[in-house]
Amino acid sequence: MYYIVSREQHEALVVAAYEHRGYHTDEAQAAARMCSEASWHGIRTHNALKALHLDELFGSAVGGCAPGAQIEKIDSPFAATESWNANLKLGQAVACEAMETCIQLADKYGTGTVAVDNAFHYLWGGGYVMDAARRGYIAYTNCTSTLAEVVPFGGKFPTLGTNPHSWGFPTTDAIGYPVVIDWATSEVAMGKVQQYKREGKKLEAPFGVDADGQPTDDPEAIQALLPFGRHKGYGLGLLNELYGGAIGGSLPTLRGRPDAADGTGEKTTSVFYFQVTHPEAISGGAFSNGRSQSDNISAIVQDVLGHGNQTCMLPGTIEANNAAESEKAGGLLFTEVEIKGFIALAEECGVDAAAWDMGQLPTYG
Amino acid sequence: MYYIVSREQHEALVVAAYEHRGYHTDEAQAAARMCSEASWHGIRTHNALKALHLDELFGSAVGGCAPGAQIEKIDSPFAATESWNANLKLGQAVACEAMETCIQLADKYGTGTVAVDNAFHYLWGGGYVMDAARRGYIAYTNCTSTLAEVVPFGGKFPTLGTNPHSWGFPTTDAIGYPVVIDWATSEVAMGKVQQYKREGKKLEAPFGVDADGQPTDDPEAIQALLPFGRHKGYGLGLLNELYGGAIGGSLPTLRGRPDAADGTGEKTTSVFYFQVTHPEAISGGAFSNGRSQSDNISAIVQDVLGHGNQTCMLPGTIEANNAAESEKAGGLLFTEVEIKGFIALAEECGVDAAAWDMGQLPTYG
Repeated sequence: MYYIVSREQHEALVVAAYEHRGYHTDEAQAAARMCSEASWHGIRTHNALKALHLDELFGSAVGGCAPGAQIEKIDSPFAATESWNANLKLGQAVACEAMETCIQLADKYGTGTVAVDNAFHYLWGGGYVMDAARRGYIAYTNCTSTLAEVVPFGGKFPTLGTNPHSWGFPTTDAIGYPVVIDWATSEVAMGKVQQYKREGKKLEAPFGVDADGQPTDDPEAIQALLPFGRHKGYGLGLLNELYGGAIGGSLPTLRGRPDAADGTGEKTTSVFYFQVTHPEAISGGAFSNGRSQSDNISAIVQDVLGHGNQTCMLPGTIEANNAAESEKAGGLLFTEVEIKGFIALAEECGVDAAAWDMGQLPTYG
Repeated sequence: MYYIVSREQHEALVVAAYEHRGYHTDEAQAAARMCSEASWHGIRTHNALKALHLDELFGSAVGGCAPGAQIEKIDSPFAATESWNANLKLGQAVACEAMETCIQLADKYGTGTVAVDNAFHYLWGGGYVMDAARRGYIAYTNCTSTLAEVVPFGGKFPTLGTNPHSWGFPTTDAIGYPVVIDWATSEVAMGKVQQYKREGKKLEAPFGVDADGQPTDDPEAIQALLPFGRHKGYGLGLLNELYGGAIGGSLPTLRGRPDAADGTGEKTTSVFYFQVTHPEAISGGAFSNGRSQSDNISAIVQDVLGHGNQTCMLPGTIEANNAAESEKAGGLLFTEVEIKGFIALAEECGVDAAAWDMGQLPTYG
């Protein structure tokens, strides 16, 4: 059973919580909107409570994120790309603005790129590319994750972030929702390892390595995560570090660890990379049987999911199904534990929590 | 033991072989150069013999590739992107020209993109991005593979190509060679399954599915390949089909199968997608301890491969090591079987094969 909370009620509290920590209203609003989007699409791992917890651990409380910071745009002779110094501004606000800029560049040049140095965690990369894809664009983002938790293929010590990649494809007309490919380059998240540890369970497969670099499914023994898909996922995780290196990022083992970096002269910040392509810019205009570009994509998706593959999902199907549930319920769906978290948050910020009373909230499911 | 063949001798024969099939000199030269590059870097799966065999199976012999075809550039209002109709021109020639165009666009706009419809197999995607990376650019390409051999995650029927992705990163100054991430999105190649079948061996893991869609390591039972890394590799393989759909590609299950598509009005051609980014376009210019961009990338790579990970390789290390062997030998290295293949090829084209006499060729190793 879930409690139904309107976007407005949710965002009012989240904005208040960010403002309580010193963030400016526009920053708080960007963060709150992305938290609503995450909850609307059932992304419980990146909801508002997680976002604010992350800010506490690595952000405004410890100097990793700077409320009210201004983005500095680096002078560049290149017209279709921009390079920004985020000056530790809140990640969600920076990411929303970067994606907006990419779209404007893509409208003009066919493709637009924004690279961001001195960034603070943007949380749900899938949300930004989904937004752009719903607006009709092909979108991509990667970033360097705060902490190095993943070993290189064949290695034993974690020197790579869980470094996610997110792609959004404008397939709403074709199939009803955007395809969103969005995952970390580790086999699993460290949070899942910790959960299995608490529950005394083995993982489904050897998703991590022990102190000797040997693969293991025992959460008690896991010291670091394995990249997904052997050398292939390793290459993808390394890619974010290389983009990071080109943009201005820090050594992965010091990133997000200002204490460890103290006195080394090394930065500890993350980087973001965003790119948007206008679908008309890559169209050859010659689709089989006179189809439109969108109809062509639809025909291809139907072919992929045909021939006995009808039970397969597309990347983005789960998010779309969750959004349909939220739509049906008429609001964001939260568990009892989450509602309690929001009530505690309201009290922390000195906001009236009456609207969050579980006796008053409508329920679903 | 390998036989050493000079690039000149090798390319003279390969050019003659392509010209013998009707290809124009510039096309034959582009193909021969990429074949030399593949052999120089130890990519035996994409050497000249394979390239010409592929042309025989799917190319000029059966109408899948059109010698002498002209690339048609589609009118577009977008400055940093181009969309081309390759009119079935030889893939290697198209890919070389597309990457060159991307570089010119990236020099001007920061990033350049070329999408290609009606394409014929470009073989070794890694070669094009490696070329661009050696010249100092960040490069990427994907394409739709000729045949659908991969099941979607959870599926039973192959509806996806082995759809490769290739990234090149300009790390030569930083580490001595470009990082090249280059792989298909299947767990293994179908060629490997067939090889294990001939040798009566089981695969290392369940890399394919049987007729019921059940994962199996038995090459006799394998009907189709699994995507690598579960749903993650599936998403990456699907991405090529979506780009394909946007550019003008065909239904994956009919691609490369003109007989099956006969009368359906469906195209059976592949698509290519190329993108190059100028590294200065994404630089924030603020690297730790006053490092240059290249030194920053070097420091990050050293961090990744430090801390007990010294035995790990980078994507591109194997190719670089093979190139060092070729350099040391002073030419391209071929096995006895390969030399015999080249002699047969020379005879097929009516070219004097005397220079390929194994009694005369210098050897290595």
